[in-house]
Amino acid sequence: MEILNFILVTKKEQQGSVRGAPWYVGAVGNARWTGVKLRDVLESFGLDKEGKYVQFFGLDCETPKRCYGTSIPMEKALSDDVLIVYEMNNETLTRDHGYPLRILVPGTIGARSVKWLNRIIVSDKEADSHWQKFDYKFLPSSTKQPQKIDFDNAPALQETNVNSAICYPASNDDGNKVKILSVQPNDEDIKNKKLTIKGYALSGGGRQIQNVQISLDHGKTWRQAELEQLAQPYMRAWAWTLWTYHIPFNDLPSKPFDIVCRAMDTHCNSQPDTSLGIWNILGLMNNAWHKVTLQIDDKFLKKDR
Amino acid sequence: MEILNFILVTKKEQQGSVRGAPWYVGAVGNARWTGVKLRDVLESFGLDKEGKYVQFFGLDCETPKRCYGTSIPMEKALSDDVLIVYEMNNETLTRDHGYPLRILVPGTIGARSVKWLNRIIVSDKEADSHWQKFDYKFLPSSTKQPQKIDFDNAPALQETNVNSAICYPASNDDGNKVKILSVQPNDEDIKNKKLTIKGYALSGGGRQIQNVQISLDHGKTWRQAELEQLAQPYMRAWAWTLWTYHIPFNDLPSKPFDIVCRAMDTHCNSQPDTSLGIWNILGLMNNAWHKVTLQIDDKFLKKDR
Repeated sequence: MEILNFILVTKKEQQGSVRGAPWYVGAVGNARWTGVKLRDVLESFGLDKEGKYVQFFGLDCETPKRCYGTSIPMEKALSDDVLIVYEMNNETLTRDHGYPLRILVPGTIGARSVKWLNRIIVSDKEADSHWQKFDYKFLPSSTKQPQKIDFDNAPALQETNVNSAICYPASNDDGNKVKILSVQPNDEDIKNKKLTIKGYALSGGGRQIQNVQISLDHGKTWRQAELEQLAQPYMRAWAWTLWTYHIPFNDLPSKPFDIVCRAMDTHCNSQPDTSLGIWNILGLMNNAWHKVTLQIDDKFLKKDR
Repeated sequence: MEILNFILVTKKEQQGSVRGAPWYVGAVGNARWTGVKLRDVLESFGLDKEGKYVQFFGLDCETPKRCYGTSIPMEKALSDDVLIVYEMNNETLTRDHGYPLRILVPGTIGARSVKWLNRIIVSDKEADSHWQKFDYKFLPSSTKQPQKIDFDNAPALQETNVNSAICYPASNDDGNKVKILSVQPNDEDIKNKKLTIKGYALSGGGRQIQNVQISLDHGKTWRQAELEQLAQPYMRAWAWTLWTYHIPFNDLPSKPFDIVCRAMDTHCNSQPDTSLGIWNILGLMNNAWHKVTLQIDDKFLKKDR
């Protein structure tokens, strides 16, 4: 079976400090995966009807007894598109991508798609690993101190929320402060008298992206981006949506200006204006509007305007 | 089969004018519904494998040829919990609720749960009705004029987004301007020296509510509300979540102040800070943070503080 899938996106918070690695808008991809259905494998072993979770453990171990491991709910494990994968983009998995076998849980945070698969356990409990119990959880905004984290009462992250990002012009933003990019439009843009903006959008749980909007005035008015997306079955839209928007040169200020994007999925879930309402100490699942600050190159402006 | 379900919520926009009826935070409910699975009925007639949509038409007609009608995707129609209902809260449906039979599509906007059911049609097309084609669609924010609406390119609304509302203290807000409520805490609140705030939260597509947060400073800091919710199967959480938060009297300003709530579902979808990024001319699916402005009764403040 083959499916298209995205991987983890965890964009770091822009308000207040958080713990963890700053992925910013990266750590997301799209590939063609080939494998067997996890469901078929589970059923071939005689599925334990009492099982509530399916746990996966990899061969990447900090100590012989402490290997990477995680789990997903049984309902998701038995759904059509959860795979044990052996090929990526029609080629044998590379070592970095989990050779010889990895799990692929589409629509779900990448942490559940265990690489270098070693063991599968059906259980009435979630995996008893650091990564399942003490990481990848959305903690209340009121939790401000690491030592006060109540992990037991926070559910493990599974399916992702709706998100989008501006990827071109590329930002060297580290997610904590916005830097001004100096942009010189390329030859085609100069010919068309438009600046091209590009990015991606995606949602979780198989929900397709419905629209992506771009604003040059911090959300007061919006323009529709053009979408490039695969036709995918209802509630099984695992591939990302790429989008493009062309800003007419006449609309470009000579001073630094902000471009903001936001996506909406087929359930009309969209992105918060800011990270105010979703701040969490682990800095996970930040899907606030993405903003890039641009400055059009001086020489270009003098020459062509 | 019995399930618990919520109905339509379509809170009107608070920024800019929109068309349509101002439901504000109402038009939502929760009941126990009894009926037969739509899937079983379709299969008993020999399901048309070519069908992409299931259309429902009611007996409420403006003219003999123009009756209320709508449709849902086949994938949803065949899912476990779409019912043809004959009882609500263990009693025969009342006329207002669709006697003798109505459709119940949980997790989906109420417009699809057709009352006074007359006909079911399996088709490769959506229902050819005004309500399916020219209403209940999310139009781009850039569409500002009714005569410029491009209905053909806007998908019909189905599953709902995540939303929440403050219901007590009750607001007489019409959704277009915020009025100040004068509140006198009740006897129990006075005894406990806390003001009780209550409301509901719900999401679409079967996603359970993960948390509800309350802010008294426009989102700078948040407190966790207590949730009252049913244990429901994974991705089949159709019932709403009720929530309560007690504000200590010491935290209450004597001047008018705002209370804001926002919910998050199990996929970490949450609500936009404002309706800036989701404004649409039909005023549908507004799930911005809900705000109520309160003024604690003067006499109470003088007497007890």
